[in-house]
Amino acid sequence: MKKFMNTAETMVAESVEGFVRAHEEFVAFGVDRKCIRRRHLVPGKVAIISGGGAGHEPMHIGFVGRGMLDAACVGHIFTSPTPSQIISAIEETDTGAGCLLVVKNYDGDVMNFEMAAEMAAGRHSVEMVLTCDDVETVRASDGRGRRGVAGTLITERLLGAAAERGAPLAELKAIGDSLSPRIRSMGVALTGVAVPHTQRTTFALGSNEIEMGVGIHGEPGHSREPFASADTIVRYLSEAIVNDISQATDKALLFVNGLGGTPPAELYLAYNTAHRILAEHGLHIERSLVGTYATSLDMQGLSVTLAFLNDEEFSLWDSPIATAALRWGC
Amino acid sequence: MKKFMNTAETMVAESVEGFVRAHEEFVAFGVDRKCIRRRHLVPGKVAIISGGGAGHEPMHIGFVGRGMLDAACVGHIFTSPTPSQIISAIEETDTGAGCLLVVKNYDGDVMNFEMAAEMAAGRHSVEMVLTCDDVETVRASDGRGRRGVAGTLITERLLGAAAERGAPLAELKAIGDSLSPRIRSMGVALTGVAVPHTQRTTFALGSNEIEMGVGIHGEPGHSREPFASADTIVRYLSEAIVNDISQATDKALLFVNGLGGTPPAELYLAYNTAHRILAEHGLHIERSLVGTYATSLDMQGLSVTLAFLNDEEFSLWDSPIATAALRWGC
Repeated sequence: MKKFMNTAETMVAESVEGFVRAHEEFVAFGVDRKCIRRRHLVPGKVAIISGGGAGHEPMHIGFVGRGMLDAACVGHIFTSPTPSQIISAIEETDTGAGCLLVVKNYDGDVMNFEMAAEMAAGRHSVEMVLTCDDVETVRASDGRGRRGVAGTLITERLLGAAAERGAPLAELKAIGDSLSPRIRSMGVALTGVAVPHTQRTTFALGSNEIEMGVGIHGEPGHSREPFASADTIVRYLSEAIVNDISQATDKALLFVNGLGGTPPAELYLAYNTAHRILAEHGLHIERSLVGTYATSLDMQGLSVTLAFLNDEEFSLWDSPIATAALRWGC
Repeated sequence: MKKFMNTAETMVAESVEGFVRAHEEFVAFGVDRKCIRRRHLVPGKVAIISGGGAGHEPMHIGFVGRGMLDAACVGHIFTSPTPSQIISAIEETDTGAGCLLVVKNYDGDVMNFEMAAEMAAGRHSVEMVLTCDDVETVRASDGRGRRGVAGTLITERLLGAAAERGAPLAELKAIGDSLSPRIRSMGVALTGVAVPHTQRTTFALGSNEIEMGVGIHGEPGHSREPFASADTIVRYLSEAIVNDISQATDKALLFVNGLGGTPPAELYLAYNTAHRILAEHGLHIERSLVGTYATSLDMQGLSVTLAFLNDEEFSLWDSPIATAALRWGC
C-alpha cells in the first residue's frame, strides 16, 4: 500500500491543513480546527453544515464556500466527526437564521449529528436532512435506509444555493426532504481499499473481478462480477438506478463520480456510455458533472448518480458557486 | 489491468466524445472531429492552440475555453496529433490575428506542430512556444532539451489570459518564451502504467519502490528509490526544482498535480509538505493549484511545479477563465 503520507495518525490533519492553505480565499479553520468554515459568512442566511469521515475528499471540505456549505466537519478516516465538532460548527456559522445539517445516512454520522442538534437546540434553530441516494438496498431492508453517497453533493449544492437566495430554514428542510427520493447513485469498484491506520482491506478483488454496489467506506457491494467492458458495467449501474428511482420525470442531472484512483479520461468514457444508455430510456440529461468529488481513499472505481430535478432546481444548480471543488458564475 | 473502457481502439474517441458532451457550454468538435474547439471564438483575438497525445486528460481538452485555449488536438495515447489535425485547428480558430501553438517539447509533437505551422504559413500568421519545464535532465544533456509536462498548464493559462486581453501574436510569443526558464516540474511514480493498445508497461515497480523523475508518457525516471514518507519524497522533488530553476525570485505559484490515480486527499497532503519546505527556502507561495490536471493514464503519482511569476503574470492567472478544468471569475 503506497500512499503519499507520513504517518497514519497525522495524515488527515496534514491533508486538511494543505487544503485550507491552498484555498484560503474560500475557507478557514474554525476554533481549535474543529471544522472548516466559510471564510466570509453571510449574516441572516441559514447556515448549511455537513461533514463525515475523512477519506472522501473533496467531499465535504471542498464544498465549503459561497453557494454551498458554510462549514464541514471532518472525522477520522471513515469515521463520523464528534458531536463537539458539529456543535462548534453550528456556533460559528449560525448568524441568526438557524442551521441545516446535511448528513449522509450512516449510523455513526446520524447519531453524532442528532446528538449535536439536540445539544445545540436551546440556543440555535437546527434542522437535519438525511441523504440516502445509494440504490444498494441491503441496508434498506433492515430498516436503516439507504446509504448517502455521491448524490449528497447535489443535495448540498441545491440547499446551499437556495440558502444563498434567502430561503428560510423550514423551506430548506422541505427542499432537502423532497430531493431525497429523486436522487439515486450506484458504485462499482475495480479495487478494494485499505484504511492506513488498520491496514485492513474490507474486500480484495482478483485481477478479473469487480465489486458491484459498493459504498464509499470500503464496504463490499452486493455482488462480485467478472470484469467487463465499460458498456456492460455502466449499463448495469445506469439501469439499476433507472429501475429504482421514484418520481422520475424525463429531465435529469447526470453525475459520474470517481472514487479516488480513476483518471478523468475513464470517467468521461463512462459518462459517454451512461449518457447513451439513459437516452435509450428516454431521459434528457439537462446538466452534467464528471469528476472526482466523493472518494473512497484511492479506490479505483466510479459511481453514477442521477437526479431528477425541476426547472427551479436546475436554476439553483446554475447559480453562482465558489468552492474549492465546484466553481462557476463567480 | 482493469480500466473503464470498451476497446483499446475506441477508448480515446469515446472518452473525448463524453468530454465534449459534458461540456457543451464551452467546447465543440471541430470539422471531422480533428480538434476540440472553443464554442464561441472571439474575433480579432490571437488563437491559442495546443494538443498532444491522449492519456493526459484533462490536459489539453479541459483547458479549451475563455481565458485559455481556442483549440486542442488529441492524438492516440501518448502519440502526437497529426499535422492535418493541427492545420484544421488553425483554420478553424484563426479569426485574423494569427495563432500561437503551445507545444510540449517531445520530438513527435515538435515535428508535427512545426510541419503544420509551415504548411499553414502562407495563409496564417503562426508562432510556436515550446514548454520544457521538466527538471529531469537526461534529455537536456543530449541536446533535445527538457520535456514539457504539467507546467505547460501555467504557460497555456497565462498566454490564454494575455490573448484575451488583446495581446498581439509577437507579444504572446515573447511572453511564452520568457516563461520557459521560470517554470519547473518534477514527478514521481508509485506505479507504472501500461498503454492499453500495446499492453506494454515501460517500467514496473515493486511494492516498496518508487520512480523519481518520471515524465507523463510512462517513461522511466532517473532513479529507482525505496518507498518513503511524503516528507521525504516531496522534499526531494521540491529541492530538485529549487536548485534547478533559473531567474528565481521569491514569489511563486505552487502546483501539485496528480498523475491520474492519486486521490485529492494525498495531493493536498503533498501540497502541505511542499508549501512548508518551500517556506524553509524563503519562497512565498502567492497562488496555488492542487488537483489532477496532467495525467499519465491511471498512474499513481504526482508532480510538483513551481512557477516564478511577476505581478502582471499573477494578475493574468487571476483573470476570468471558463474551461472544463479551470474555472473562476465567470
